[in-house]
Amino acid sequence: MTKRRFYSTSGLTVGEIVAMTGARPPPGARLGRRITNIAPLDRAGPADLTFLDNAKYAHLLATTGAAACLTAERFANRAEPAVCVLVAPEPYRAFVTVARTLFPDALRPSSLFAASGASPGAAIHPSARLENGATVDPGAVVGPDAEIGSGTVIAATAVIGPSVRIGRDCSIGPGTSIVHALVGDRVIVHAGVRIGQDGFGYVMTASGHIKVPQIGRVIIQDDVEIGAGTAIDRGANRDTVIGEGTKIDNLVQIGHNVEIGRHCIIVAQSGISGSATLGDYVVLGARVGVTPHVVIGEGAQLAARSSVTRDVPPGARLGGYPVKPMKQWLREIAAIERLGRREEGGKKRDKSADE
Amino acid sequence: MTKRRFYSTSGLTVGEIVAMTGARPPPGARLGRRITNIAPLDRAGPADLTFLDNAKYAHLLATTGAAACLTAERFANRAEPAVCVLVAPEPYRAFVTVARTLFPDALRPSSLFAASGASPGAAIHPSARLENGATVDPGAVVGPDAEIGSGTVIAATAVIGPSVRIGRDCSIGPGTSIVHALVGDRVIVHAGVRIGQDGFGYVMTASGHIKVPQIGRVIIQDDVEIGAGTAIDRGANRDTVIGEGTKIDNLVQIGHNVEIGRHCIIVAQSGISGSATLGDYVVLGARVGVTPHVVIGEGAQLAARSSVTRDVPPGARLGGYPVKPMKQWLREIAAIERLGRREEGGKKRDKSADE
Amino acid sequence: MTKRRFYSTSGLTVGEIVAMTGARPPPGARLGRRITNIAPLDRAGPADLTFLDNAKYAHLLATTGAAACLTAERFANRAEPAVCVLVAPEPYRAFVTVARTLFPDALRPSSLFAASGASPGAAIHPSARLENGATVDPGAVVGPDAEIGSGTVIAATAVIGPSVRIGRDCSIGPGTSIVHALVGDRVIVHAGVRIGQDGFGYVMTASGHIKVPQIGRVIIQDDVEIGAGTAIDRGANRDTVIGEGTKIDNLVQIGHNVEIGRHCIIVAQSGISGSATLGDYVVLGARVGVTPHVVIGEGAQLAARSSVTRDVPPGARLGGYPVKPMKQWLREIAAIERLGRREEGGKKRDKSADE
Repeated sequence: MTKRRFYSTSGLTVGEIVAMTGARPPPGARLGRRITNIAPLDRAGPADLTFLDNAKYAHLLATTGAAACLTAERFANRAEPAVCVLVAPEPYRAFVTVARTLFPDALRPSSLFAASGASPGAAIHPSARLENGATVDPGAVVGPDAEIGSGTVIAATAVIGPSVRIGRDCSIGPGTSIVHALVGDRVIVHAGVRIGQDGFGYVMTASGHIKVPQIGRVIIQDDVEIGAGTAIDRGANRDTVIGEGTKIDNLVQIGHNVEIGRHCIIVAQSGISGSATLGDYVVLGARVGVTPHVVIGEGAQLAARSSVTRDVPPGARLGGYPVKPMKQWLREIAAIERLGRREEGGKKRDKSADE
Repeated sequence: MTKRRFYSTSGLTVGEIVAMTGARPPPGARLGRRITNIAPLDRAGPADLTFLDNAKYAHLLATTGAAACLTAERFANRAEPAVCVLVAPEPYRAFVTVARTLFPDALRPSSLFAASGASPGAAIHPSARLENGATVDPGAVVGPDAEIGSGTVIAATAVIGPSVRIGRDCSIGPGTSIVHALVGDRVIVHAGVRIGQDGFGYVMTASGHIKVPQIGRVIIQDDVEIGAGTAIDRGANRDTVIGEGTKIDNLVQIGHNVEIGRHCIIVAQSGISGSATLGDYVVLGARVGVTPHVVIGEGAQLAARSSVTRDVPPGARLGGYPVKPMKQWLREIAAIERLGRREEGGKKRDKSADE
Repeated sequence: MTKRRFYSTSGLTVGEIVAMTGARPPPGARLGRRITNIAPLDRAGPADLTFLDNAKYAHLLATTGAAACLTAERFANRAEPAVCVLVAPEPYRAFVTVARTLFPDALRPSSLFAASGASPGAAIHPSARLENGATVDPGAVVGPDAEIGSGTVIAATAVIGPSVRIGRDCSIGPGTSIVHALVGDRVIVHAGVRIGQDGFGYVMTASGHIKVPQIGRVIIQDDVEIGAGTAIDRGANRDTVIGEGTKIDNLVQIGHNVEIGRHCIIVAQSGISGSATLGDYVVLGARVGVTPHVVIGEGAQLAARSSVTRDVPPGARLGGYPVKPMKQWLREIAAIERLGRREEGGKKRDKSADE
């Protein structure tokens, strides 16, 4: 297969990179050299910028074909002489700054049909309101009284339900559906996300389950990003809220009435049960489970796969099932391993002790 | 943001609420007072009905702004005098009865385009049959020989495959696909559900995996509800069956040949492997895993995150991994925690004991 | 409900089945007898082929209504006399060979609209290139410069993004979206799959999270099959790769930069974090979790629900959390159970020992 690129870029000079990152170039650096792409150390070529901030990969610096490398002081002298080593206190952050400038189109998904405005193949209800500069791809459906802000792109086959309001400069991915929701500005919703459908609520009786009407909304504040396949249910009788700047990965489940604070990180396949509350800056590792009505304090961090069955104080670092301090959890894992090893001999000793 | 409501209601008087629930109003209650919405205790205003059935929230009764509150006898005297306290033996159930009457549109999702009949923007095969009163939104696709019953709504961008039959008064959500399936009456399928695709079956060989043809169907009985993003595979050489009245939450995986009984509850992110069988009234908590060919007896309840690797007798209450009686499981969790705590000192004692 | 079949078949004679499988018919078998369907032992009727290779189900051989049964030598004499018993060394594999011949349409999903070529109701960008014999269903969207190979079916409401290339004889399911990707030949992607959206990458700072541009692709090699609702993110600065012949089940999460080898099996609800690498022929049971940057060696097998937090050597058979050899893991489970049982009495003994 020939190399096919999904973005083009006009590039930056090394001098421009130095200026935007504050990195220190080596003496005599060719500041006019042109960088047109980014790449990892082992794949980088003569027009690529790379970075190094992990000792594990430092050996690659000696053989990389990169034009330039952002790295820390301590690795600077390990590079192949042809590489222009740019020293920065936070190499990865500097690298990301350059990448964002090189690939501005990658900061937010755009139309999948090179469309602008309302595409002929989209079904837009006459009562819906699109601001100037909103784009609706073919195959998308926008319901009655919906509002779409300027700069926002509704991708092919996305569905925006009645009375939904979506702010400006948002990107709504292909196949995504948004109903009973208000969405802020600069929100990115990736493909196949499900927002605003009924939560899971029944009165259970011996003759069957009676559906509880779900009449709340979903409120998604500014600068939120939501990964593919994630489901966020509407509130039952209040609103489900995703706070400003929060980032949610793929295939996450968020139940009705959940309130998530600002700038949280929710990694893939996590599940947050109904009416749970997360403070600001909470981090849930991959596949964390949160039971109903639990409150997780600001800045708490939960290790991957942990299961939150009780309130968590602010700033706590917990893991395991049920969650406990990381140190305690790791000690228990070690204790179980020792117990397993001891069992063979132990069974005999137990036996004689019991006698 | 101004308050935007996704449903309107003409309201009920307190007297009508008393009549429909059998609740007991206080002496001198203004039975003509109009209730137009429902709300939780802490959010309710002067036109809202609320409820209280949990001592944890009883303090809110003193400050709620609700017009009326359904509650139990024991909380009745704790209310702010302006609140009309309605005493009912099952306050939540009474509340849900009122909510269902106030919001009849919330009992089943309706068209996302205010459509009725076959929308011009839908692709309906000429050989498909729609009963009178069936609605197909724009962007939906209905394949050859498919049948859609009266009162059923196929939402925007849903896909109904060839020869699929869907009963009456169903709601099929946006972006959902249904193939190789027969669906009963009053079934609600939310957004992005995947029904009837091939199950995961291969003959594994050293030179690669040979696909096993999947030729069964999915049978979904009456009054089933299925949450967003859930996947239900067609049978391999028999049918996958979801029994009457069963409710399935979001992002659940149901493998080929699975048979689920009547009135089961399957909470979010659970996974049921191929050829497993669930009796009637089985409850799976969030993220329960069921291994292939297992049989779970009628009325069994499995705690969140448990993993069912053996047959489960009817009525059992199990949890953990592998599943065991709840009491045993909790005892083991406690034992591990004690073990972890003992380890520090224990390591030393072990050492001297080994010498 | 009347029996409704989603595939028809002209059938095979017993003689043809014998010829294609090398199975041994009984003396005097009616080799001209016509078989038109397959079924499990307990459901099979007089025109059905069934199979038996598990002693657990051997008793059903005495009562099955099947016309013919592929089985092993050791079960051959247990059949009801009317059943034509065909003895084969690998009965299930022989059965699958017959099933594949009887149901050739079931080997790969076809158009959901009995369509061929570009459907009028599809939105195909003028710059997209469809080879002769490619089919695009109504409601599907094909973006600028995309390429679709001969024999490939793009199902209703699937979205193929700009510059995506899809090979020949592929099947792309309804509601699936594919962006920033190159797809080989004979690839099956089921319904609602999400391929090529941004991975989850941010620079986390105290004032919010800065999005890291994701500019890699997804490369899907020949003969891959991907289950409903699965999400595969594009690479961050390299490619996400799914190797030839690998089969992925439903609702699996695959992060950016992941490289999966050839002929792997990934069972439902598993999650593979960013930059992890799987060698050829790796098997992940249901709901396995793999942490970032981990390397799993060729042929390793991970038990359902295990959690891979360290590199795994080739050929290892591991389970548990963290993963360990199966035997050790099962021993630990047993040890915990014994510990729980001992606790009641043990607590007293501990107490006196501590005194």
